[in-house]
Parts: sequence; C-alpha cells; structure tokens
Amino acid sequence: MTTAPDLDARDLHGSLQDPVLGSIGFLNEVMSRHPDAISFAPGAPHPEFVRHLDTRALTDRFLTHLVADRGLDPARAERLLYEYGPAQGLINDLVAGALRADQGIRADARAVVITVGAQEAMLLTLRALFREAGDVLAVADPCFVGIVGAARLLDIPVVAVHEGDNGLDIDDLSARCREAHAAGRRVRACYVAPDFSNPGGVRMPLDLRRRLLDLAAREDLLLIEDNAYGFTAPEDDTLPGLKALDTGRRVIHLGTFAKVGFPGARVGYAVADQRVRHAGGERLLAEELADLKTMVTVNTSPLSQAVVGGLLLDHGRSLTALARRKADRYRRNLACLADALERHLADAPAGVTWNRPAGGFFVRVNLPVRADAALLEVSARDYGVLWTPMSQFFLTGRGDRQIRLSCSYLEPDRIETGVRRLATFLRKETGT
Amino acid sequence: MTTAPDLDARDLHGSLQDPVLGSIGFLNEVMSRHPDAISFAPGAPHPEFVRHLDTRALTDRFLTHLVADRGLDPARAERLLYEYGPAQGLINDLVAGALRADQGIRADARAVVITVGAQEAMLLTLRALFREAGDVLAVADPCFVGIVGAARLLDIPVVAVHEGDNGLDIDDLSARCREAHAAGRRVRACYVAPDFSNPGGVRMPLDLRRRLLDLAAREDLLLIEDNAYGFTAPEDDTLPGLKALDTGRRVIHLGTFAKVGFPGARVGYAVADQRVRHAGGERLLAEELADLKTMVTVNTSPLSQAVVGGLLLDHGRSLTALARRKADRYRRNLACLADALERHLADAPAGVTWNRPAGGFFVRVNLPVRADAALLEVSARDYGVLWTPMSQFFLTGRGDRQIRLSCSYLEPDRIETGVRRLATFLRKETGT
Repeated sequence: MTTAPDLDARDLHGSLQDPVLGSIGFLNEVMSRHPDAISFAPGAPHPEFVRHLDTRALTDRFLTHLVADRGLDPARAERLLYEYGPAQGLINDLVAGALRADQGIRADARAVVITVGAQEAMLLTLRALFREAGDVLAVADPCFVGIVGAARLLDIPVVAVHEGDNGLDIDDLSARCREAHAAGRRVRACYVAPDFSNPGGVRMPLDLRRRLLDLAAREDLLLIEDNAYGFTAPEDDTLPGLKALDTGRRVIHLGTFAKVGFPGARVGYAVADQRVRHAGGERLLAEELADLKTMVTVNTSPLSQAVVGGLLLDHGRSLTALARRKADRYRRNLACLADALERHLADAPAGVTWNRPAGGFFVRVNLPVRADAALLEVSARDYGVLWTPMSQFFLTGRGDRQIRLSCSYLEPDRIETGVRRLATFLRKETGT
Repeated sequence: MTTAPDLDARDLHGSLQDPVLGSIGFLNEVMSRHPDAISFAPGAPHPEFVRHLDTRALTDRFLTHLVADRGLDPARAERLLYEYGPAQGLINDLVAGALRADQGIRADARAVVITVGAQEAMLLTLRALFREAGDVLAVADPCFVGIVGAARLLDIPVVAVHEGDNGLDIDDLSARCREAHAAGRRVRACYVAPDFSNPGGVRMPLDLRRRLLDLAAREDLLLIEDNAYGFTAPEDDTLPGLKALDTGRRVIHLGTFAKVGFPGARVGYAVADQRVRHAGGERLLAEELADLKTMVTVNTSPLSQAVVGGLLLDHGRSLTALARRKADRYRRNLACLADALERHLADAPAGVTWNRPAGGFFVRVNLPVRADAALLEVSARDYGVLWTPMSQFFLTGRGDRQIRLSCSYLEPDRIETGVRRLATFLRKETGT
C-alpha cells in the first residue's frame, strides 16, 4: 500500500475549493466540539415536527387517492411505490392544485416537476437555462448558499445584487444587467426569495415585486423564485408571490416540503410553465427539467412522494393548512427571539443593531467587530452560544461584521438563555 | 396571454438536444401507444419484487439497529428519519460491511457515500474528477445512457472505447489514451461495467480485469466501475470486481439497490477511498463527493435509507443474500429467453445472430437491416413486440443493426410468446 495521496485537490473540480461547499460542514464541526453551547446556527425544523410521523398511514392515504381519484387498481397503485416512476413526478397534480388554491399560482400538473428537495430543482433549473459561457446568474447578496453552490458546480458565473431592507435592490439589478451587456454578456436569470429570504430575513413589498417583474420582461431575464419561507408570513399579512403575479411566464417557482412537511422526505418542486420552442413542436420547461433529472436522480423516490402526497391529502390538499401549526410555532419563536434581543441587548455596545423580520427563521445582528471563525470560537467556548457568520452568505465582503441567528428549532427558554449568553459575549468581546 | 413560445430550445443547455436524454421518453411513448405489445424494452424489476414490501417493518428493523448497535436512544434514532441528515449517508457502515463480506472490497464506511441511486453517484463522481476542459471520459461503446447523459450535463467530452465479446477492449482504450496525449488532452477516467454490462451483456475475464488495472496505473487514469448487474452471476462462477482487485486505489465503485432491492428506494452508493491532498491535510474522495452532494440533493432521503438498511439487516447484512431470490429469477428468465431464441430463430434470415450472456438482463440481436425507430414501429404495430434499438447506446454508428432484448420483468410464457412474435417479424420484415 502506498502512503502518498492519490489525488490532489487542485486537480478536482474548482467548486470543491469554494467555501460555500464547506460551510455546512464547518458549522457542524464547531457544534460537535461544543455540544453544550446553545446554537442559533442551524435552520433545522422544530423537534415537535420531526417525530411520531405515521408514514404508513400517510402512504395508505395516498394509495387510496390513487385508486379513488385516478382510477388505478390497488395492486398497480402499490407497485408505483416500489418501481421506477416518471421523472417528472407522481404528485404533480396535488402540488399544482395546492399552489393554485393557496397561492394563486395558475399552473397545471404538466408545468410541475417533483425534485429531491428544492436543491435539485435549483440545479436542474440552472442547468437548463445556462448554455453559454457569457450568461451570468444574478443573486441577492447575501444569498442562500444552495443556489451559489449549484452555480459553482455547473461553472456558471454569479453576480451579486445588493439586498436592502426591502429585499433585492432593483436598481442595482438593472445596473448589473447594463454592465453585463456592456461586457458582451447577459444576465440570464436572477435568483430571489421575496418572502423572508435566508439569510437576509427581508420581504419585498408588492410594488417592488411588480417592478422586478417589469424589469425581467424589459431585460429578457428569468426569475428563479424560492418560496421556502413564505408560509411563515402572518396569515392576515401575506403578499402574492412573484409567480402569482407573473403574467408573462418570467418566473420559475421553487418550493420544498422540508419546512412545511419534514426535511427527511427530500421532496421539493419547480413550477416551470415556460413554453419551449423545438424543431418538432413545443414543450414546457418543466418537461425539459424532467429530462435533465433522468441524468441526476432518475426520479424522486415514490416512497417519499407518497408520504408527502398523504400529508397534502390529510390537510385538505392545502399547503397552507399543512403548514399552519408550523407557521404558528416559528412565528412564536421569532417573536420570542426579537423580544429577548430587545431586553438583553438594551445596553449592547455601540454598533450592535439587528433587524425585526415579520417571518422566516432568521434575525441578522450587526456587530462593531469582525464576525469571523475566531470570534465564533470564543463565543462557543467561553460563552456557550453559537451563531453563523454572515460572511458565508455574501459574495462581496459586506457581511463580515454580521451574524445570523436562527430560532426555528429551539424552545423559548433556550432562546432566552441563548440571547442572555449572546448579550454577555457581545458586551465583553465586542465593546470598546 | 401571449401565444408565442417563451424560450427556444437552442437557447437551453446543449445536453437537452442530445438524444440520450430523450431515449427513455421515446421508448415509453412507443410502449404507451402499443399497450398490448410484449415489450422487451425496459430493464424493469420483475413484478414479484415490487409488491408487499413492509416498509414499516424494515424501518423498525433499522431503528432497532441504530439503538442496539450504535447506541442511539430510540427518540433520537427516530428523529434521524425525518430530519436532514449527513450528506455522506446513514447506512455507510452497513454498505461497507456488505461489500467487504460479499465482494472482498476493503473500504471502510468513511469511503462510502450514499446517493440517490447510482445515477447521482455517477454525476458526483464525474463532477469531482473533471476540472479541465482538456480532460475526457472514456466509456465502453455501447454504453449505459446514464453515464453519457451525466457527462453531457457537465459538458464533459466523451470518447468511445470498443467493447467486444470480452468487454472493454483494452488495446483500444490504450490507443484512446495515446490519442488524447497527442492532442494535449488526457483520459481522466474510464467508465466500465465489467459484469454483464448494460446493454452489451458482456463480462470481462479475470486476466483482462488485471490488465485494465495495470493500464489505469500506467496511464494515471481512474476507473469508474458500475456493478449494477454483478449479482446475476451464477453463484459458482463469480469473478472479483475491479474494486476487489484494486491495490492502488484506482477504482471508484458504484452500486445501486434498484436491482437487489427495489428501484423506488432511489438508493445507491459510491465507494471512493482515494486520498485527496489538501493544503490543510488529507481527505477521502468520498468526502469530496459528499460536499458536492450538498449542492445536488443535500442528502439521500433517510426514509429510503432506513428501508434499505432494514433489507440488509434482514438478510444477514449481505447483498448476496438480499439478491439471491432475484438473481435466481433473472437467471431463469435469461435462460428462458436464450432457449426461446434458439428454438424460434433456428430458421431466421441470414444475418440474424445473438449473444448468450451468462448474466445480466439483456441479450443483443444482430439484424441484417437497420434497427431504427421506423422498424420498431412496424414491429410494435404489426407484430406486437417491442425492443430497444441498440443505436441509442452507441456513440459511434456501429449499433445501427442491433437490438437489445430485456427479459427481467416478463413471465416465461410472455418471453416465449414475445420471441415467437419477434421471429415472425424478423422473417417477414428483415429477410431478403
């Protein structure tokens, strides 16, 4: 046996050197070394939503639906669980129906592709849309690492668009489009999470959503809308998503059951109703995504799709109904975090400020000092509290004095204790 | 609403224009138009293996293992099913143990990554290994469409290596390596299925396996071994796989539970024990694959992994034991197909010949005429029998007079009837 390494990292794909791919591992590693620290790092589901799931009953509920509503004979329906299945999915009609009823998205089942979480939907969407080396992807800055990572995997260049308190800065996106044109390139698509972005936590007002759609039409770009956190909006204060406002088929809408259902299902979806001209006729972009999917995962596990289908059927075919208890819990947790920050950071050092999102899982805190791995180590070791450096979400250097606090999976008393520890840490380590 | 298409196929990624991505859809479409035809097209599992699976009992079996063998408390074990999980997988130890016991593959759990079927393992492996535009992937010709499709998705150039009756032609691979060098490129890796390749059905003899490993060392290339059909080898006539023979860590071994378990699980794996040198130390290639996986599917559904884990535990942690009944069935079906061909094609037109593989799902038949979509249509419509044109598996034009017959999912009487129809078709339509 040779003892020399077999390969050199520099001879593997460049994405493997990108910090976005290692970011989750980094946080897990810090957490594992400090098991007693209260961690505001992961956007994990609350424990009450990841136990006592009767997957057998949910599966049976879905099988009953296949027999009663789709006219399959019972043996054929059960075989669907175990065989290969259509690349485009098994529960497309349920998802399309729920999106229509809950969110006013007018797309039929053919325009939906069921994916292994929203992550695969991102990869497929980027792969389909990006052909030329001159095409760039615009993303909010800061941005969810999953979209940046998928772009890196496919060697798609990414350009950062400023995200302010009202979400994506549309003038800045417009400037990026002009810059790209001037350089002989084009902004092919823009990734945006208008409802409580991760990690920004911001929500775009209605007029800016309309302006963004106008810009997309004017600049001939597509919008990739990620709606992972939309369900956390207060029920009396929801805004129509980009796809619901989209009359020109400019928007590809991505969703996931990881938050409204459970992450282990690994089921997400893309709504892609764009019509694609072929020599032989016309198809929908969702069908193209399904073709690509045959070369990524073949099809999404029908076992998982059946469980998710059962969840939808058990909740009147409504995502809103399915999400209701979770939305309540996450809003309470966020209010609890905001309240604790108000009380414990009243006498925080100068330069410590934070935002107050109306939904989502995350609060951002600005610090007067650099929030880097060394500071995180001090916070974990000496104060027993963990957070995520915002720098890992920024493409530009602008986030190096910010941290992200996630409160989704913690009980209120842990949030309270964690914020108290954080306040002590901030006073002692970041004051002047 | 505009009625013009929104996008042009030529402005989407080039892989979508490649026939490999449409090949499965094409066959499904022909089958759906001829529901009464006997189809030798799909390599689907036999119906007896896709019914009456007690997924709840299998899951409970796996949970018991987590508690008894890994010391998790029961609540924590159950939460693992529903939460996000490690990108590298949950059942790595079971898979590594089975591969060691059954196939003599010496790799520990850290060298294994659990994937959404072998397809995702292919995509991840290619993504990790292919960095430079000058690197090419060598594949057997004919070849499984999944590896070619994954390469197309990543814009990786593919070079065809002749596959003869003894599998991959090693002299031809050597010539392709020289050609690449001469053109300032390199063959970075070679995809090979040494045990009953799909669609070729051939098996490489032991001495050629050793020669292939020697060549890989000499030319500094990696071998991507696909072992989807190895389990169908006669039990008294198995050969060690490339990974079992691999003393220099030249082989990345890919496997799937789609055949030995069931396709709907969507669980496969890669064994990648190559050591990768980093500035900060050393990692295993499997860990790099897991990092890439966070940007493709995040992690493989723990629900599916639990079911597959339960299947392994229920069969003494042995893939061979798990596969035994299936291997018996598929060998019987293949013998039945070979026997029917002998009897019904005794007076076949000149130029009709076929191979007699000792395992796998597939027999190839050479025709005296072009086996194209038009001929398939005649066969389906007028004779009630379907097959796969081999041309869709070839990168070169060499397969245009071959068809592939799959017998995995048919009952013996259907095989018999199908071959009789095929014989009539061949006599009437391909004779001179």
